[in-house]
Amino acid sequence: MAKKKFVAVIGGSQCSKKEAQLAEKVGGELARRGAILVCGGLGGIMKAACKGASAEGGTTIGIIPGNDRQAANPYVQIPIVTGLGEARNVIVVKSVQAVIAIGGSYGTLSEISHALKNGIPVIGLNTWSLARNNLKDKSIILAQSPAEAVDKAIDLVTSSRSEE
Amino acid sequence: MAKKKFVAVIGGSQCSKKEAQLAEKVGGELARRGAILVCGGLGGIMKAACKGASAEGGTTIGIIPGNDRQAANPYVQIPIVTGLGEARNVIVVKSVQAVIAIGGSYGTLSEISHALKNGIPVIGLNTWSLARNNLKDKSIILAQSPAEAVDKAIDLVTSSRSEE
Amino acid sequence: MAKKKFVAVIGGSQCSKKEAQLAEKVGGELARRGAILVCGGLGGIMKAACKGASAEGGTTIGIIPGNDRQAANPYVQIPIVTGLGEARNVIVVKSVQAVIAIGGSYGTLSEISHALKNGIPVIGLNTWSLARNNLKDKSIILAQSPAEAVDKAIDLVTSSRSEE
Amino acid sequence: MAKKKFVAVIGGSQCSKKEAQLAEKVGGELARRGAILVCGGLGGIMKAACKGASAEGGTTIGIIPGNDRQAANPYVQIPIVTGLGEARNVIVVKSVQAVIAIGGSYGTLSEISHALKNGIPVIGLNTWSLARNNLKDKSIILAQSPAEAVDKAIDLVTSSRSEE
Repeated sequence: MAKKKFVAVIGGSQCSKKEAQLAEKVGGELARRGAILVCGGLGGIMKAACKGASAEGGTTIGIIPGNDRQAANPYVQIPIVTGLGEARNVIVVKSVQAVIAIGGSYGTLSEISHALKNGIPVIGLNTWSLARNNLKDKSIILAQSPAEAVDKAIDLVTSSRSEE
Repeated sequence: MAKKKFVAVIGGSQCSKKEAQLAEKVGGELARRGAILVCGGLGGIMKAACKGASAEGGTTIGIIPGNDRQAANPYVQIPIVTGLGEARNVIVVKSVQAVIAIGGSYGTLSEISHALKNGIPVIGLNTWSLARNNLKDKSIILAQSPAEAVDKAIDLVTSSRSEE
Repeated sequence: MAKKKFVAVIGGSQCSKKEAQLAEKVGGELARRGAILVCGGLGGIMKAACKGASAEGGTTIGIIPGNDRQAANPYVQIPIVTGLGEARNVIVVKSVQAVIAIGGSYGTLSEISHALKNGIPVIGLNTWSLARNNLKDKSIILAQSPAEAVDKAIDLVTSSRSEE
Repeated sequence: MAKKKFVAVIGGSQCSKKEAQLAEKVGGELARRGAILVCGGLGGIMKAACKGASAEGGTTIGIIPGNDRQAANPYVQIPIVTGLGEARNVIVVKSVQAVIAIGGSYGTLSEISHALKNGIPVIGLNTWSLARNNLKDKSIILAQSPAEAVDKAIDLVTSSRSEE
């Protein structure tokens, strides 16, 4: 297997205009850095990220929850059709070496959780913060901009590579 | 289908002695209140809750992640064998009308997230607290004791019933 | 875990009257023999088997494909809600020690296949027959009546027990 | 979404030399016809098909059952990591518009079943044949050579397209 870089962009299927702009920039920057974009394949953050990646000639994969490939957003080049509902969230994060979370609701939080459970690093842009038993959990790596988020993701993918 | 009450108890497969005591009390109290206990079927919180429920004559269901029914803790009466890994977390929460979370790590957080995503109420005992974009999320209903947690869970199950 | 016997009854969600009668007898006989019935939770063969088991005081578990416990047939006592679509077929067979197939279409065939793949014995009543590369595959154990099917299933469960 | 053609090649993770040659030719021909190859990502038929497709510059996707992307065969360009065990078989067939089955055992039969259940056409090369209640089931479309199998698959994908 060629040493490709796989990065997920996760976030709500509905999102603010500002969040969509962040996601589009993240998608574009990932493509420029040679990473393949994996996402849940639907609208909102997922669509914006795929749009950004496609505009830069990147490859986009959408792991969709339903049974109809037509449900994938128009910028998904490779739809993976699961019919698994939210259980597909597990596949989104297991298929990548780093996750970038932008905003998001409980579905996004489930993906963050599954990623952390599996030791897959999560970079956060305006997303969830966590505390356990009143102790702040610092596992989500904070980023202040799309470029910083992608930099951190690519660095983590590259370092995880050298361990393989 | 008889109008049974199904409540999940979620938490780490490893836990402190104090957490195990909380879980055992929750399990016992759920059984006394006539609720069927659903959990992930393994050790720690899951085992303690099943032990408590069994001691009170309750029914215990363990949705296990692997392929071997022998992996279920000895207090699971009905093992459901999924082979799905963590994707089984989705089934644990979808199969109940209320969730009680005790302590827990990222697996538990994924179950909390999937529950909230599906509109299934979550009662928390010494567990995760959440904030989104720096705004506290108050969806997890706090409880200070096993009895209070079970009271709240049973109330929520009963009220969800009347809406059906 | 108590040494319970778990047997699945699989078959179409639509079936002939004759097939339903077979399934009801199988369900009833399984209950009389102390086995817990696992099925896909919906109509047709599944409903008839659950009806038969319930009439004899047996326990019935329905692993349902959708997100709504109300979709379970009225004789399912314990609905397991997966939201996984047909991927739930894997759980039906992995959760038991023997499978009885009655009639059925491609969904049933997928369950037969998953069972055989996992080394779980399948007893067939008027169901699929298989050939591979023109060689008859005799893995499905034929039965001529509900009583014979249940006899064979219970024998297989009991012998698989002694190996554990 | 570009109007891409997605075709699965399914078969055993162990296979004869002759079957591997068939699979490699199928993979190569699919690539020449512009189809993206989807498979279960492991060895045997899957590896041979991916090898054939890669040699012709095609794209190969492997939906792997475990948690480790390194388990994908070396000709998988895009590994999708599910951790779902055999439940991943459902994803393999739902993600394509036609399936080519070569030889295979019960895992392959489960994929054939899930495909037929979902109305996805299956072309068979030296694979299972089915009968239901002693009536031959002719749903599997027979092919005598890799070229014929690919021809039929591509025709079916194209005609399913015009209906969308």
